[in-house]
Amino acid sequence: MALYLGIDGGGTGCRAAVADASGRILGLGQAGPANIASDPDSAAANILQALDIALKAAGGGTIHAAGLGLAGANAAGAPDRLRAALPFEHVAIVTDAITAIKGALGPDDGIVAALGTGSVFASQIGGTIRQIGGRGLVLGDEASGAWIGRALLAQTLRAVDGFTHFTPLLQGVLQEHGSPDAIVARSLTSRPADFATLAPRVAKSSDPAAAAIMAQATKDTAEAIALLQPFNSLPVTFLGGLGPAFAARLHHLAQRPAKGTALDGALLLARQAA
Amino acid sequence: MALYLGIDGGGTGCRAAVADASGRILGLGQAGPANIASDPDSAAANILQALDIALKAAGGGTIHAAGLGLAGANAAGAPDRLRAALPFEHVAIVTDAITAIKGALGPDDGIVAALGTGSVFASQIGGTIRQIGGRGLVLGDEASGAWIGRALLAQTLRAVDGFTHFTPLLQGVLQEHGSPDAIVARSLTSRPADFATLAPRVAKSSDPAAAAIMAQATKDTAEAIALLQPFNSLPVTFLGGLGPAFAARLHHLAQRPAKGTALDGALLLARQAA
Repeated sequence: MALYLGIDGGGTGCRAAVADASGRILGLGQAGPANIASDPDSAAANILQALDIALKAAGGGTIHAAGLGLAGANAAGAPDRLRAALPFEHVAIVTDAITAIKGALGPDDGIVAALGTGSVFASQIGGTIRQIGGRGLVLGDEASGAWIGRALLAQTLRAVDGFTHFTPLLQGVLQEHGSPDAIVARSLTSRPADFATLAPRVAKSSDPAAAAIMAQATKDTAEAIALLQPFNSLPVTFLGGLGPAFAARLHHLAQRPAKGTALDGALLLARQAA
Repeated sequence: MALYLGIDGGGTGCRAAVADASGRILGLGQAGPANIASDPDSAAANILQALDIALKAAGGGTIHAAGLGLAGANAAGAPDRLRAALPFEHVAIVTDAITAIKGALGPDDGIVAALGTGSVFASQIGGTIRQIGGRGLVLGDEASGAWIGRALLAQTLRAVDGFTHFTPLLQGVLQEHGSPDAIVARSLTSRPADFATLAPRVAKSSDPAAAAIMAQATKDTAEAIALLQPFNSLPVTFLGGLGPAFAARLHHLAQRPAKGTALDGALLLARQAA
């Protein structure tokens, strides 16, 4: 029996699913991080370990084709190095964003707005995916959790300087840090995930400063979605930890829940690769 | 004879001046970097070395009071640690931004807009300095060279995604990097000074994308200056590598050239500390 492998791998961990030709999942596995750009060797080892667990759970067999959605797959050369280390006949390697989109939409036309620590937007029309955004916090990732958290700290400093009024939320942020210099010091060592820890309280808050940040983020999200709409006709699927917050703010758009996970998207990719 | 020491120290080097009570400079010295937050031990050693050279050039003597403008002086605890290592009776330690402001204005009322790799704005009224901005690129430094260079890369990626039109400048930036992913990769390792290397071509260019970036930067600069103006009455002194570019764009403001350098400001601080 021909088996198919799907891998969903990111900076925190890697999941594997082994399925039959109909898409029925026979076994699941899990292992450590799989960012093939920042640490290709341990990514390959973790992918093979997750596969091993999933294949045992499935009762063994041979992988006919594999679909892998991996953080860092957009880095030049990274997918080729990994492909050489994998013993499968058919291998497709894409970013974890692509498998998330494929999983969310299946084969259907639609738009995905993924808003977690980072942000990325995509349309799928007739099987062709167009992706925008997802450039990282330094140059983009508008409306992402990291972007929202960084904006909260920046607005706090702008209130200290008198560019904007202090609100209870900004006053609270300043008090928690102790001083403006402590906020600056934090910014110098914070990774996107650190900034993103501040996002849920901004998304939930009715404070005027939070409302202003979320209004800008919602505008940026709407602009990205509009850019992907061919005729304002495709439903939007919101993904990620902040997905529900933006789905509620953009309730006037036609929306559709996700069909499946990134792991489902990876399995779909595997069947397409075969 | 009572001698006064001025120190201007930053991330690339440290300069010392020894002067008499009238402010006449008797000797100059120079040594390595003096960021007292990131490397306090070598900062102290470099300051003492620069002093040693300046004091020898002055023909020897005893320092009565010292004024030091140092990068990192706003980090909690850093000035106290350095003060303990310096053998002077009167010591004043401030950031290098403060000595730049003091040097530029002398004892006069005025406003300083310092636009180099970073950006900082200040007013001096009746000897009291109020400083805004200067929070670093992650959370602020609007209109700085680093901010402008980063904006150029971000706009190039927004043109790739279709959020904005490609212009000859943005097309050129993309071609120089080879791919959008290469621009993202650069952003992950670039320090503010790296981004700032792109700023002069933006400031000089008549390309529409450059004009839009400079228009936003000029708006931010004007807003910071307006916030510091008590009654629109104080002349503005522009400092830093991008100072002339913004002075030209804000030619309707009353302006005044700098009276002196940051080293002059440090000597003024030393006399005030005595």
